[in-house]
Amino acid sequence: MFDPAPILSGNRRALARLLTHIENAAPQAEAALAALFPHTGRAHLVGITGSPGSGKSSLVTELAKVYRRAGRSVAVVAVDPSSPFSGGAILGDRIRMRDLAGDPGVFIRSMATRGSLGGLARATADVVKVLDAAGFERILIETVGAGQAEVDIARTAHTTVVVQAPGLGDDVQAIKAGLLEVADILVVNKSDQPSAGNTVRALRASLDLAHPGARTWTGGAGRLLPASPRAPAPEERPDFEQGQPWTVPLLQTIATEGTGAQELVQAIEQHRQHLHASGELARRDRERLAHELEIRLRDVLLARLMERMGNGQLSAALERVLARQVDPGSAANELARHYP
Amino acid sequence: MFDPAPILSGNRRALARLLTHIENAAPQAEAALAALFPHTGRAHLVGITGSPGSGKSSLVTELAKVYRRAGRSVAVVAVDPSSPFSGGAILGDRIRMRDLAGDPGVFIRSMATRGSLGGLARATADVVKVLDAAGFERILIETVGAGQAEVDIARTAHTTVVVQAPGLGDDVQAIKAGLLEVADILVVNKSDQPSAGNTVRALRASLDLAHPGARTWTGGAGRLLPASPRAPAPEERPDFEQGQPWTVPLLQTIATEGTGAQELVQAIEQHRQHLHASGELARRDRERLAHELEIRLRDVLLARLMERMGNGQLSAALERVLARQVDPGSAANELARHYP
Repeated sequence: MFDPAPILSGNRRALARLLTHIENAAPQAEAALAALFPHTGRAHLVGITGSPGSGKSSLVTELAKVYRRAGRSVAVVAVDPSSPFSGGAILGDRIRMRDLAGDPGVFIRSMATRGSLGGLARATADVVKVLDAAGFERILIETVGAGQAEVDIARTAHTTVVVQAPGLGDDVQAIKAGLLEVADILVVNKSDQPSAGNTVRALRASLDLAHPGARTWTGGAGRLLPASPRAPAPEERPDFEQGQPWTVPLLQTIATEGTGAQELVQAIEQHRQHLHASGELARRDRERLAHELEIRLRDVLLARLMERMGNGQLSAALERVLARQVDPGSAANELARHYP
Repeated sequence: MFDPAPILSGNRRALARLLTHIENAAPQAEAALAALFPHTGRAHLVGITGSPGSGKSSLVTELAKVYRRAGRSVAVVAVDPSSPFSGGAILGDRIRMRDLAGDPGVFIRSMATRGSLGGLARATADVVKVLDAAGFERILIETVGAGQAEVDIARTAHTTVVVQAPGLGDDVQAIKAGLLEVADILVVNKSDQPSAGNTVRALRASLDLAHPGARTWTGGAGRLLPASPRAPAPEERPDFEQGQPWTVPLLQTIATEGTGAQELVQAIEQHRQHLHASGELARRDRERLAHELEIRLRDVLLARLMERMGNGQLSAALERVLARQVDPGSAANELARHYP
């Protein structure tokens, strides 16, 4: 029987142990997640993604510092989907976070792929749930890279921050349309580099291209630059028709000096308020949990079929597929038909 | 009733129409795939992946030209998992392929994310099956980016080529351990850049780090540089214990000039022979089809449950999850229990 009390009271050793169980998909993790689930839904989840070399990790460290100065507890989950190795893979980044060591209001966890992508996405979602239940008010989910895997993980967040750097941003392939699409906030980090202005212009042009006819944002000052609103398709986000659309701000930062971190936290908090006021928060929550329910259903149904069918029939079906006698879709239909 | 004859005889219009059906997940695609499946398994599938800006597309074009000169028919499938937009997203790259236009021995298809990552991976696998049945001898599957999504798609190939470029390769994050892990062949493109030597050295060091104690490759000449063997874990690849291990070659290319493309094709063909001789080809085929069978089973089982259960019960379960009364895992178990 799992006792949620140590986690709920913020016991760090209990927390670390449970997160390891989740990463290893240990049997006791399921019961713990079930017991902790009623205590989730309070944290604000911030996804931070972007190209390698954009300086995301330094920026995350600076964000955590700003939140700590404001008295908010912060957890950082650093995800590296393209590494099959364990946490050590992004050790270099973690070293930069040593400024935060010893602060009980901060918790940092690195995650690397143990098996499939689906496995990592689910483990990340579960780790975030535990940190949420443990009372961390802001959870920063950092993903290395810019592939669909990272986009999917970032999508589980409430607010998605996409980080670019000069030079990288000049490459038309680096300004991925897919990344712009998921961005609630755009950041050009390393803005002390000479080509930063070009990157900002290129990103703004990409934003305009992705959202033609979008209104230009006029708020903010200083390093908080106007950009295009997110302007999602109305059928995709019905609540946006009633409320105000969110305007994707384009910010410039120099993470190594902490410049712009305060403004980025401000933008995140503004987006958080927007999500609450517009009803978008409830919509994202519903979408995320509906997706998770479906994934769990698939797992349960397959596990039940396997129990009843045994390995022999599955192997026989696979042999017929390998011999090209039947295609995988038809073989699956036949197997399922045996167990109505 | 689907008539496979036009596809099998290489009718390009029938081919293009069927691929569109697959991309749109149209109902008629299922029957076509079932009818074509017995004719698959002959093509050699080459996955080509790497960082944005590494010049993969130019390299793929050059590879296609070398194969054409050798009289091999070639299909190119260009996948962009991080773009939610349609094929136009990588139009710039396709323009570079115009040298190949009009050649009946070449077929080029761009694919972008329509929905989920899983959807794209499956559509790509199905498109490759159709091109295989249509008689293309070599199928080049190009993925943009370096995330787990791309790695997963590359894994469906027989031979995986990982492309890096100078500058990008100097960034410790860009030399992704995960990419090295899946590489059968490593390429440093844009090798006319001054820092190419650094990138080659960094990649070789990464290879040695990833596979400590691995033997150094001694074959090859000219631009075919020695590197470390792949050295997979014995329990993962049992057949390697009997056969010779594959030695990951590290090649340098200048795709814009066609330099090194011939050597890269040679390395791909050597790897193909190695897969046949070692029995690894059969093992990869089995693994891929077993995975596909499992995915199809999950789909079929969920669809059957939904048919019998109706939307009402699922919605009721979702509402309880949203209210944090029950966690998604427990809710899935309860739903499945109602339909034994």
